[in-house]
Amino acid sequence: MKVVDNISRMATLVKIHKKEGKSVGFVPTMGYLHEGHLSLVKTAKKHTDVVIMSIFVNPIQFGPGEDLAKYPRDLKHDEELAGSAGVDIIFYPSAKDMYPPGYCTYVNVEGLTDNLCGRSRPGHFRGVTTVVAKLFGIVKPDIAYFGQKDAQQAIIIKKMAEDLNTGVEIKVLPTVREVDGLAMSSRNMYLSASEREDASILYQSLEQAEYLIDKGERDAKKVIKAIETMIKEKTSSKIDYISIVDTKELKDVDTISGEVLIALAVFIGKTRLIDNIIKKVTADVK
Amino acid sequence: MKVVDNISRMATLVKIHKKEGKSVGFVPTMGYLHEGHLSLVKTAKKHTDVVIMSIFVNPIQFGPGEDLAKYPRDLKHDEELAGSAGVDIIFYPSAKDMYPPGYCTYVNVEGLTDNLCGRSRPGHFRGVTTVVAKLFGIVKPDIAYFGQKDAQQAIIIKKMAEDLNTGVEIKVLPTVREVDGLAMSSRNMYLSASEREDASILYQSLEQAEYLIDKGERDAKKVIKAIETMIKEKTSSKIDYISIVDTKELKDVDTISGEVLIALAVFIGKTRLIDNIIKKVTADVK
Repeated sequence: MKVVDNISRMATLVKIHKKEGKSVGFVPTMGYLHEGHLSLVKTAKKHTDVVIMSIFVNPIQFGPGEDLAKYPRDLKHDEELAGSAGVDIIFYPSAKDMYPPGYCTYVNVEGLTDNLCGRSRPGHFRGVTTVVAKLFGIVKPDIAYFGQKDAQQAIIIKKMAEDLNTGVEIKVLPTVREVDGLAMSSRNMYLSASEREDASILYQSLEQAEYLIDKGERDAKKVIKAIETMIKEKTSSKIDYISIVDTKELKDVDTISGEVLIALAVFIGKTRLIDNIIKKVTADVK
Repeated sequence: MKVVDNISRMATLVKIHKKEGKSVGFVPTMGYLHEGHLSLVKTAKKHTDVVIMSIFVNPIQFGPGEDLAKYPRDLKHDEELAGSAGVDIIFYPSAKDMYPPGYCTYVNVEGLTDNLCGRSRPGHFRGVTTVVAKLFGIVKPDIAYFGQKDAQQAIIIKKMAEDLNTGVEIKVLPTVREVDGLAMSSRNMYLSASEREDASILYQSLEQAEYLIDKGERDAKKVIKAIETMIKEKTSSKIDYISIVDTKELKDVDTISGEVLIALAVFIGKTRLIDNIIKKVTADVK
């Protein structure tokens, strides 16, 4: 496994592989790898000849007061995990090479970025789509892999990849969870032992929502209320949002029908965690 | 020469050429070709194996009240000119394929788009950079060619291509002019006979500006005033802007030094024409 920190060296390596007729699978990450990332790598390994993982804590997707400075980093450990999962090249660029003085080009996916995390984190998705457009430019992947945990991100990136005719196929893979259901996230390491226990309420509340919908509940407000009630029982929690939206335009729905995304962001202590499920409802018999 | 109107067919053709190890030169146009476009083709022909020209009147770079509907189109004539200049493939996509319902991704180059034409045509450059990013995605050129007549556009696209790590080299070629100095433009066909005569004042005034600077004038305001006075003598003219800016950040300068862009936009009758020169001033002996 190679570790490449130079942008033009990375682009050259890709060119060489492409000339040999090899397909490129790409797993963009911010590092501090967990099983969620590695599941993307394992799938990429099955589909493509060369698997490239980027590790880059992208400053422009963090807002003021967010956790850019303290975001966990451990390249040595990441290298071990990536290598054993089958990554061929780690691309590890520096922020000053990605955003040199005078940098001024941004990619925006309008509309889809207004709701959910876009509402709580203004500018966040502009940072995400910009860095992903840049990484696609450098790595020129055939297929890029993203986790369902960041549902809105995955939908936005898929839209961007299509709209800008990048030719990159976007694959979104299921959220990998801890035994108690907590979605794997690099940010889970911020949690104290008691917060870690409380955090399992996020997925439990989503499961409860699914249960209610399966039992026939179609009123989005009632389902949201049920989730809210469960989460509020944990005193360490502070809800950022709980939303039920359609999966096309990410707009709030009143009535649950077709395919919906049930998404939430909750602070457990000072740590903001997100989770979601996608629920498909077949037309009810009248 | 092939004419391809299907986006995925175009992308596939490029893939085939790339697999054969061929380099791709790209000349994006809005059609209604003139010698300016053809000079780009001829240079592309020297540098690259396959020359692709796009002909696409891009709706999102026109503002309300601008000339989108009446912008001249003549594909048959364009095909003849392009073919004889050496174009291998004309890419001729439809607006509904480029911007299908739900299209929502835009590329912005911030700052550089605020002055000059960006000031008079809000949203124009966002439309330009978005379509060029899309065309680069489809055509995946090694080198793309633009005319110096659209000086701000060329600088913005070069910045975008670098910032987004497209790997596309941008070449900017000299403005091709009519015998009396008028910059070639598809929009010149809007001019009446008398307006066509008046229009030559644009380049004459730029030549006069150059003369003044060569004689030692360094006060931007005085040079602009001289241009303005000349243009105002033509009663068919209405000045949109006359500006002298640095070529890096496109900000107005008070004192002419280093490399400056002297750019203007002037209505002759109802037709908005642009022109510019780049002037390099070596440090004056004190």
